[in-house]
Amino acid sequence: MAIFVQKFGGTSVGDPARIARCAARIKERRDEGHGVVVVVSAMGHTTDELIELAGRVSRSPSRRELDMLMATGEQVSVALVAMALESIGVPATSLTGGQVGITTDGAYGRARVTGVSRARLDEELGLGRVPVVCGFQGVSGSGEITTLGRGGSDTTAVALASALKVAETGGVCEIFTDVDGVYTADPRLVPTASRLTRISYEEMLELALLGAQVMHPRAVLFGERYGVPIHVRHSQRPDEGTLITRETPEMEDVMVVGAALKPDLGRVSLRRIPNNPGVQGMLFEAVAKAGILVDDIVQTEFGEIASISFTVDHGDLADVKIAASQVLDRVGTGELAIEIGLAKISVVGTGMKSHVGVASRMFTALGAAGIAIHNITTSEIKISCIVSKQDAQRALGIAHEAFGLDRLGALQAASTAG
Amino acid sequence: MAIFVQKFGGTSVGDPARIARCAARIKERRDEGHGVVVVVSAMGHTTDELIELAGRVSRSPSRRELDMLMATGEQVSVALVAMALESIGVPATSLTGGQVGITTDGAYGRARVTGVSRARLDEELGLGRVPVVCGFQGVSGSGEITTLGRGGSDTTAVALASALKVAETGGVCEIFTDVDGVYTADPRLVPTASRLTRISYEEMLELALLGAQVMHPRAVLFGERYGVPIHVRHSQRPDEGTLITRETPEMEDVMVVGAALKPDLGRVSLRRIPNNPGVQGMLFEAVAKAGILVDDIVQTEFGEIASISFTVDHGDLADVKIAASQVLDRVGTGELAIEIGLAKISVVGTGMKSHVGVASRMFTALGAAGIAIHNITTSEIKISCIVSKQDAQRALGIAHEAFGLDRLGALQAASTAG
Repeated sequence: MAIFVQKFGGTSVGDPARIARCAARIKERRDEGHGVVVVVSAMGHTTDELIELAGRVSRSPSRRELDMLMATGEQVSVALVAMALESIGVPATSLTGGQVGITTDGAYGRARVTGVSRARLDEELGLGRVPVVCGFQGVSGSGEITTLGRGGSDTTAVALASALKVAETGGVCEIFTDVDGVYTADPRLVPTASRLTRISYEEMLELALLGAQVMHPRAVLFGERYGVPIHVRHSQRPDEGTLITRETPEMEDVMVVGAALKPDLGRVSLRRIPNNPGVQGMLFEAVAKAGILVDDIVQTEFGEIASISFTVDHGDLADVKIAASQVLDRVGTGELAIEIGLAKISVVGTGMKSHVGVASRMFTALGAAGIAIHNITTSEIKISCIVSKQDAQRALGIAHEAFGLDRLGALQAASTAG
Repeated sequence: MAIFVQKFGGTSVGDPARIARCAARIKERRDEGHGVVVVVSAMGHTTDELIELAGRVSRSPSRRELDMLMATGEQVSVALVAMALESIGVPATSLTGGQVGITTDGAYGRARVTGVSRARLDEELGLGRVPVVCGFQGVSGSGEITTLGRGGSDTTAVALASALKVAETGGVCEIFTDVDGVYTADPRLVPTASRLTRISYEEMLELALLGAQVMHPRAVLFGERYGVPIHVRHSQRPDEGTLITRETPEMEDVMVVGAALKPDLGRVSLRRIPNNPGVQGMLFEAVAKAGILVDDIVQTEFGEIASISFTVDHGDLADVKIAASQVLDRVGTGELAIEIGLAKISVVGTGMKSHVGVASRMFTALGAAGIAIHNITTSEIKISCIVSKQDAQRALGIAHEAFGLDRLGALQAASTAG
């Protein structure tokens, strides 16, 4: 018996009709003779409603009490999904995170999973039942209810799939969502984007960090660490979706699997500052204290003088300006420059590790289209260029075309079929 | 340090403003230097909304899944009440039934409490915190979430008060509700009804069974069994309320403490049936199978012929008629008569045990007012008369006056003060 973990997000269980469709999907898999473990999120806007309610009772509710409150959202969902399953003849048992034995480090609101017991799941599966588990939650060592923070339900699903060793049984972790898989680019921005049949954890992680909202980076990392095959599929449609797996030798044949766009960036530059190891620390500590996430950092030096540039979300610019000015005051010298209206386009691919010429192909294509590149940053499997915001969507399309991404989905599908 | 258990019902925590008033009430008691343990119900109409949601997902949801769903209602309340307490400087910790260690027999939807651990409560109280506990729920021996059924939150409060031995510490179990105590009769029916300062468990139990909705009979029984003093008070007003305690010798001085009216009854009579031990069993088994609660039963016999009459709620008459007709068919002889438009008035008092003349005083008063009595049933501390529905409210007032109940509240208050 293969074991499948099926995770349904908040939109997929948003109302009784959608819950019925999820139940049908679960029954289908079970009717094939497989064991199925289900993970669900809170229905639609439940979490927002609970947060609003908390705000009306307390201006600064404690994280512990927020977790106690939030955890009810998933508990409602699991009970309803179990009822829906039983109403179509599938024996099911809803379970809280605590009942399954998902233990966490006790950090309220952003707990990390420290252990998963498979005893209760095995017991239910042994009885021919479908365990329906609350995503997003666990209990600390002392029995306190904790939530896992953003992407928590994906993480729950991957953690259960890992504990159940689904790969060894021939199963996978299926993430049902409101898109039908991972695309070579956001289809709303690049109409020719093609759906990938497969992608490596590493590539998916980079794309997720660049803003692809299909899966949360944390769950992808968890999947990579424990080798859990993750299948991203549409919850209301039968499409084949995208399989996220370990890198295989043939994946290296493809230089680039995806392109992404991060819009509305601003660039902050501190020029002519002392080239002094303490300055960077002082600067980014001040920025971090202001609660601002820094995108890419570029530093150039000329002897005793240096320049540091970094990009941030456009909305953070005002705060960054204050923090950076204070640092310059303390340093006593240098200039602050702020540029707005920027964006970042990136291409991602495991194949970059073994192929040369990826960067040059990208720069050439953008150059031929007359698009100016303001900054370049690279990682082992990623190349990013800062461009003007008004050029960004066109630049994304050009990069997408330069690496033949519009045909990649079909190529992958053909090689899988053959 | 005296320990008080304070229970707030669904209406009392119905919205953020009411929750803030409950928090203020809790703080008041704590500021007196006492330890406080809070029990809360689900907010306002939450339970009805959850049941409606379940109905949209499944026509016959399992009791286990309904309990899983229902239990979220109280969990939302405890988190919000704990947040409200912390926002006014009272350290608080919300706890589910399972976290407190309220164990039950596992009968979903109507579980009985089998044990209460005081370890976690003592720990929180020891830290100077207010534990805020989910009413209405517990966990079975195998860790399943179970609800206690109607009156469950009152039962939780009394059970915790019993485990904490509040009486020995000088505290009580305070039940905060939307009335300011127990009255000698429903003030909407008898404007001169007076509020009792104290009442015995036994009397309260009879009144609760007769329809007084102040407290659920089950919680009163629990309080009696474990000797927990129960103080019924208004949640939004400072009134003194009513204390439910063990019978004291002085209570016997008062013949009657309360009068109650059960409206809209019908009477079913099976006349001229064989006076045969099997017939009653056959009849009431058939009635029970139809899910009908029987009120009072009166049987009269004339040698080999007997008559059985019993009262039921008016709404159940149609079903009873079918069940009783089938029994008559099987018996082969007898007549079925149905009377409608009846009601029952009762007077209750521990003092009846030691006073004679209670029944005659009631019958005389009703007779003098020209009210016909259709049936009489009595227990050790209760006398009930079936009267016409149109006479019922007047009869209640007459009985209330005949036993001086309009002055009883003031008398009790004076004797307590003196």
